[in-house]
Amino acid sequence: MEVLHTVAALRERLAPYRRREGATIGFMPTLGYMHEGHLSLIREARRRNTVVVVSIFVNPLQFGPNEDFDRYPRDTERDLKLAEEAGVDFAFVPDVKEMYPEPFLTGVTVSGITSRLCGASRPGHFDGVATVVLKLLNIVQPHQAYFGMKDAQQVAVVQQMVRDLNVPTEIVPCPTVREPDGLAMSSRNVYLTPEERAQAPVLYKTLSEAAARLREGTVPLGKLADWVAEQIRTAPLADIDYVEVLQYPSLAPLSDDAPRTGRQVIIAVAVRFGKTRLIDNVVVTL
Amino acid sequence: MEVLHTVAALRERLAPYRRREGATIGFMPTLGYMHEGHLSLIREARRRNTVVVVSIFVNPLQFGPNEDFDRYPRDTERDLKLAEEAGVDFAFVPDVKEMYPEPFLTGVTVSGITSRLCGASRPGHFDGVATVVLKLLNIVQPHQAYFGMKDAQQVAVVQQMVRDLNVPTEIVPCPTVREPDGLAMSSRNVYLTPEERAQAPVLYKTLSEAAARLREGTVPLGKLADWVAEQIRTAPLADIDYVEVLQYPSLAPLSDDAPRTGRQVIIAVAVRFGKTRLIDNVVVTL
Repeated sequence: MEVLHTVAALRERLAPYRRREGATIGFMPTLGYMHEGHLSLIREARRRNTVVVVSIFVNPLQFGPNEDFDRYPRDTERDLKLAEEAGVDFAFVPDVKEMYPEPFLTGVTVSGITSRLCGASRPGHFDGVATVVLKLLNIVQPHQAYFGMKDAQQVAVVQQMVRDLNVPTEIVPCPTVREPDGLAMSSRNVYLTPEERAQAPVLYKTLSEAAARLREGTVPLGKLADWVAEQIRTAPLADIDYVEVLQYPSLAPLSDDAPRTGRQVIIAVAVRFGKTRLIDNVVVTL
Repeated sequence: MEVLHTVAALRERLAPYRRREGATIGFMPTLGYMHEGHLSLIREARRRNTVVVVSIFVNPLQFGPNEDFDRYPRDTERDLKLAEEAGVDFAFVPDVKEMYPEPFLTGVTVSGITSRLCGASRPGHFDGVATVVLKLLNIVQPHQAYFGMKDAQQVAVVQQMVRDLNVPTEIVPCPTVREPDGLAMSSRNVYLTPEERAQAPVLYKTLSEAAARLREGTVPLGKLADWVAEQIRTAPLADIDYVEVLQYPSLAPLSDDAPRTGRQVIIAVAVRFGKTRLIDNVVVTL
């Protein structure tokens, strides 16, 4: 595995593969502090692509002024070791100046999809995500880019942006990887105290029960969000940011007159445990 | 020359050139209704590139609600003939649905550079330009893209966007092509009545005199805009939208404490003759 810190160096190393007939480039953008979720994406790319590129960059643009940019966990050395073991060929590790040379004046915005869920709780977050993902896709020019469904709204935003702007990359959503007790893998899980960690599995437990009830029709669609919130509140340390049941991937409200069958519905939650905000979701095809 | 109407068809035809060692793709986005200005860009691409692509698309996104989108002059048949004669290999002529399939939710904004000149007079115009140019660059993936300096602010906006978003295309600004009497070539010149057409050369006459005075130092920098406005007002049909003297390409105000030598200064005007709004500029290196 080679580690590259500049756009120019990475492009130079990727150029020969771009010209080789049948060769494909697979890419995963990450904030680093890798866990099994990241590694599962890397392995998927390793199976499908000739060359596997990963970026490690904690993108300041997607953190709000009162969010955890400064304390976001970082361990690049460990990340590089894990990436290499999982089969990465090139790791792109730029600094902030390389990504945002002054003056940086361009912004990318995806409307609609970003007005609810984390878009509502974290104003500007998805502008920052869209901008950095577009930059990285332009830098790497991958055939496929892999994203975890834990950030389902991010997947929807990136897919819409790629479609709207004709970015020649296929976005591949991959399933959320979970701890044995169901907690979605997240770099932020390290923030949790033992008590918070013990209660956090309530999220996925509730989401999977809600998905079952939705499929069976035992809780009406209009009451599902309230039912989920009620279940989550049984965990004393859980402080709900949002619980929403929406169409996926448009993230538009569910109108009850829409035909039920074949519709994709997302049940999405963001819940604080102490200072740590966790998100999780399930997507159900009706 | 081949005419293509869909993104998929164009990409398929360009793919072999992309893999050929040493082959380069040159591209000019146009609104059509071609004149010598467009053709000079095509010839420059023909000299420098293996393959020359031109797009003809009147982009609704860059016209304001009270602007001339509907009456913007169109003659695709004539355009295709002229493009072929000038050496174009592929003409991309999409319709609005091909470029903006519903729902279209992504916007690109370049701040700073767009706050003055046409950015101030035409709110949203440069968002529309940035978005469509980014789409076209992603569709064609050219090595070089050619833009006329008549739209100097557009060149500055596109260069900033390409730099900020790491678009792997070199932006090549080309000199404004003029009528024998100095009037900058523009598709909108056909709107002018004979009287308006007779007075329109006052723009370039004034700009070139202003450039000379700026170089000689015979009009102080701080008084130059007023001097230009005064000269243009000698044409009775001229109705000034703006006259500005700014740094180029940042389009920031000139602070007199900045070092003079080597600085690029743009003298830019937008002037209405009847219903027709014309723009012109000169860039002077001090």
